[in-house]
Amino acid sequence: MKKGKFITFEGCDGCGKSTQLKLLSDYLTEQDVPHIFTREPGGGKISEAIREILLNGKNSEMTDACEALLYAAARVQHLHDRVQPALDEGKLVVCDRYVDSSFAYQAYARGLGVDFIGKINAYAIENYSPDVTIFIDLSPEDAFKRKHGADENDRLEQAGMEFHKRVYEGYLEIAKKESRVAVIDGKQTPDGVFESVLKVLKDRNCL
Amino acid sequence: MKKGKFITFEGCDGCGKSTQLKLLSDYLTEQDVPHIFTREPGGGKISEAIREILLNGKNSEMTDACEALLYAAARVQHLHDRVQPALDEGKLVVCDRYVDSSFAYQAYARGLGVDFIGKINAYAIENYSPDVTIFIDLSPEDAFKRKHGADENDRLEQAGMEFHKRVYEGYLEIAKKESRVAVIDGKQTPDGVFESVLKVLKDRNCL
Repeated sequence: MKKGKFITFEGCDGCGKSTQLKLLSDYLTEQDVPHIFTREPGGGKISEAIREILLNGKNSEMTDACEALLYAAARVQHLHDRVQPALDEGKLVVCDRYVDSSFAYQAYARGLGVDFIGKINAYAIENYSPDVTIFIDLSPEDAFKRKHGADENDRLEQAGMEFHKRVYEGYLEIAKKESRVAVIDGKQTPDGVFESVLKVLKDRNCL
Repeated sequence: MKKGKFITFEGCDGCGKSTQLKLLSDYLTEQDVPHIFTREPGGGKISEAIREILLNGKNSEMTDACEALLYAAARVQHLHDRVQPALDEGKLVVCDRYVDSSFAYQAYARGLGVDFIGKINAYAIENYSPDVTIFIDLSPEDAFKRKHGADENDRLEQAGMEFHKRVYEGYLEIAKKESRVAVIDGKQTPDGVFESVLKVLKDRNCL
């Protein structure tokens, strides 16, 4: 029986997720809320070994389907090694990316399809649905402008941009379908975003 | 477009599969049939790395679901690295164990369920269904007697026996449902079994 709350953070690269996780970490420590921060793959030697393959795999002939299955394997093990024990202790578990990242990046952007990603992640989806998923809504164009200024714009970045646009569209689809996903306007200042995050977590009885 | 034929061998531990694979290997070489013999995980550094985790994992806290996902990941990569290229060259591909082993050992015997194993192996099942699966039908009791004689019978082996009985029941279920599975009586002499194997492969246009 899970007792703690399970919160996940999602968003495109450059959306400001890391900043928000840092702010939340400081807040939870200040407020003496028992919690852990975690991310996949992580939490033990099995996950580390899978991570190693995923990194080595970049230099090699790894198929997209194999990669997706390795992420799903690492996810299951991470749930067992890190998430469930913390939930059992009544802790708030904050996870940087989770199943929705597989949907956005692998199902939508890489084209593996929602059906396939849903099937291989059935264990996580059925047994560990987050209490709240914070989606920091910043389009890749806006993230890019914020990082580089409005002028930078080369062909290579454009190619990458198409991929990240598909990731973003994927997230918007997920947010439409899943009531657990709270969409937070990522164009606000970091403090503004964080205020919205806290409000959601309080409204949904996670704090 | 696949051109070669894809044949898999299945059966309980001790059913005589290795002997049959050796006899078939000799036969195909003699007859100059272009072929490869293979098994999972295998065929490249990614599969080897996954194999490494599966072996290390035995000493550790690997969940059954994680293990099943790692086998599925290795399977996808093996299909890509070894099976598809050989089929493209028109070769006969003989694989020692395949998806049915996951069903028999993981879905039935370990209790992960047919639904879960089917889902995570959807890619292999939908895209690489064997032309023929040879199931060497020898119950674990008969395999045990053959190996140890009828008298040996300790408590430890009995515990293992329950597991292997579930594996065997799983195979019988699969054979009932799947017309691609040819059930071959494993109580015959090795030469008798091999004659039956050849007959099946000829009848089904694999030789």
